[in-house]
Amino acid sequence: MAKQLPQLLKGFRDFLPQEQMARKKIISKISEVFERFGFAPLDTPALEYYELLGGKYGDEGEKLMYKFKDQGGRMVALRYDLTVPLSRVVVNYPELPKPFKRYQIASVWRAENPQKGRYREFMQCDADIVGSDSIVADAEVVTTFAAAFKALEIGEVKVRFNDRRLVDQVLGKLKVSKKQAVGFLRTIDKIDKLGKQKVLELLKDEGFDKKLMEDYESAMDALGKNFVEEFEELLGSFGVANIEFDKYLARGLDYYTGTIFEFVLKDKPEFGSIAGGGRYDNLIQDGKGQSIPAVGCSIGLDRMLAALSEMGVIAPQTAAEVLVMNLDKNLTAEYLNICTNLREANIDCEFYYEPAKLDKQFKFAQAKNIQVAVIYGPNEAKSRKANVKNLVEKKQVTVDLEDLATEIKSMLW
Amino acid sequence: MAKQLPQLLKGFRDFLPQEQMARKKIISKISEVFERFGFAPLDTPALEYYELLGGKYGDEGEKLMYKFKDQGGRMVALRYDLTVPLSRVVVNYPELPKPFKRYQIASVWRAENPQKGRYREFMQCDADIVGSDSIVADAEVVTTFAAAFKALEIGEVKVRFNDRRLVDQVLGKLKVSKKQAVGFLRTIDKIDKLGKQKVLELLKDEGFDKKLMEDYESAMDALGKNFVEEFEELLGSFGVANIEFDKYLARGLDYYTGTIFEFVLKDKPEFGSIAGGGRYDNLIQDGKGQSIPAVGCSIGLDRMLAALSEMGVIAPQTAAEVLVMNLDKNLTAEYLNICTNLREANIDCEFYYEPAKLDKQFKFAQAKNIQVAVIYGPNEAKSRKANVKNLVEKKQVTVDLEDLATEIKSMLW
Repeated sequence: MAKQLPQLLKGFRDFLPQEQMARKKIISKISEVFERFGFAPLDTPALEYYELLGGKYGDEGEKLMYKFKDQGGRMVALRYDLTVPLSRVVVNYPELPKPFKRYQIASVWRAENPQKGRYREFMQCDADIVGSDSIVADAEVVTTFAAAFKALEIGEVKVRFNDRRLVDQVLGKLKVSKKQAVGFLRTIDKIDKLGKQKVLELLKDEGFDKKLMEDYESAMDALGKNFVEEFEELLGSFGVANIEFDKYLARGLDYYTGTIFEFVLKDKPEFGSIAGGGRYDNLIQDGKGQSIPAVGCSIGLDRMLAALSEMGVIAPQTAAEVLVMNLDKNLTAEYLNICTNLREANIDCEFYYEPAKLDKQFKFAQAKNIQVAVIYGPNEAKSRKANVKNLVEKKQVTVDLEDLATEIKSMLW
Repeated sequence: MAKQLPQLLKGFRDFLPQEQMARKKIISKISEVFERFGFAPLDTPALEYYELLGGKYGDEGEKLMYKFKDQGGRMVALRYDLTVPLSRVVVNYPELPKPFKRYQIASVWRAENPQKGRYREFMQCDADIVGSDSIVADAEVVTTFAAAFKALEIGEVKVRFNDRRLVDQVLGKLKVSKKQAVGFLRTIDKIDKLGKQKVLELLKDEGFDKKLMEDYESAMDALGKNFVEEFEELLGSFGVANIEFDKYLARGLDYYTGTIFEFVLKDKPEFGSIAGGGRYDNLIQDGKGQSIPAVGCSIGLDRMLAALSEMGVIAPQTAAEVLVMNLDKNLTAEYLNICTNLREANIDCEFYYEPAKLDKQFKFAQAKNIQVAVIYGPNEAKSRKANVKNLVEKKQVTVDLEDLATEIKSMLW
């Protein structure tokens, strides 16, 4: 009886080389942009005291958080997002200069229902500015993410923004109670997906006054004028295009207290928001219970990767560019020399360890997406020449061993 | 009463920006070398079925493994090393071309006693070749890690190697029982730390024959001759120097079946082994119970980081190279323009969001290790010139706004 193979856990993923190479490139491009904007990397543990995370993410968070007792009897939990650990770091190291601009690209864990196409381990990609209440900081966060998307060549993105303070002010003026406000905002937030007509019907069904939407819209425009102008001007100075005041934007998280914003792909709105964030001035509190203002944004890396693959932006990846083929065991020392020379010339290269039929070795190269093969047998060894085959263009040339790296570079780059 | 601050878990670490930047650089250099040698990145989940990990790491592993029941009642465990997940991947995806050369740089979790200076979350940095029993693969793994250390400019490293098959053969010939062999090998492995005299005393205390050590040494030299010559020749062809047959090397892990090796710093032997590995041909089994040969090596990243800091190889890190200072709120748009231009010229730059005393802004720059400040006030704005201050050399120049990026680059690079 065949042994049952060990399995991957449901909702978890292996990233095999081709995919992982693509992810690595994307993460490295995003990091580079974050650093360009003065954000520095931070890393925090996968495990935290449950006491820190518990009660921070509502009922759903409580249900989905991986928590358990460790060997020392402490209740611990796997990181659920990157914001709460950030808040702990800010409190634990008051000596960090403020504003503290950090980014973190790391896995978080949530026991989501995988049927929904969600994963239980996924990567978040956050940049936050802690310790400034300046609206310039809000604009800079938006600019940073716009620059990241530009670097990824993901196509044009659109930024939608709104302000929670403005929304509260308007709903207060319109005498909408706090409880009603939650329902109203939840419904109008769907305008993007359902269209305005449908949303108006929903509002009617929910018992809202027919005129509320109209009043809301005109009050948002009137009272929001200054904020919208200032924010657009700042983003304009930063060189960000495609920005749009969206008075229906609410964003789910309770902790936002000011500006909120969302990025969508201009040509692929069906992907939904690929990044989003806002200002949260009450979440982080120092040892004395004093609030520390903060603003940040987060990229949904999985959704973006899906978009990039669909757009064909992610090319097939390969670890090695060159395969040094093995024609004769007696040439081993020479093969290793060739590999070493190529690697020292910054060419990624792999050696076929044991002699085998050329056909088998070519198949191996093809399966690994290797682009160039070096073919060197006893005859070539006599004349110190090697055959270099471009496996993509199926062309072959013969060069002196000393010219091998140069020839291969001209093929590859 | 002040609220109790949320704490970091014992044995876990935050990596604040300066340290995390250094770690990132090291990881990226190592990855680059691994890819140069044809290893491709793999990523696997932090959580696995306990069934997969349980029983793989001996009694200690059982005690130190973080395991718990998840929301679905499955017994799961946090990754304990990167080798067992690799073995699962090889089995789950038989279509991966062999030899499969992968690297993985990722955290593993062990509930170690932190008093020992050990961490409960630490990074492993592994490269393995699965599906080849060629000794060239063993030599290539050693070469890869030697090249990684060279790229890290960590100083000269020494490679010590041995072969488990050879040791078994010799002990068999000397009629040492399997049980005795474990004790004998554990003791002679300490020769490096305790010196030969002390080890001979220990062997005597443990009841071994006075002549056993001598017989072991001469038999190892005689029977190991061919293996040692071949391995040294291969490493020589790969350009690796400082290799040494170490007949006392045993390495703890049960699963090694052939070559074993260890890297130490030539000038800092007190750091102990900074990387180690070997051949393990029985650990990975396919669905039919067939063994798949493998060889690999792992860097102890924490120990290496400690070595690098102590050697001063890790320079103070900074996210932003430039601070654009804020002298006047009315110049905000111009400041944002300046930032945007510098960033587009690939200069990492930060803006001080609100006007403040110059002294305060200089202190901020100093605290963040920022090297250059741009000082631009109403007077400078009139003439479209900016002052650029090199904060390290305390020198200041005045340049046209258009020449700002060029001037800063000449200061920084």
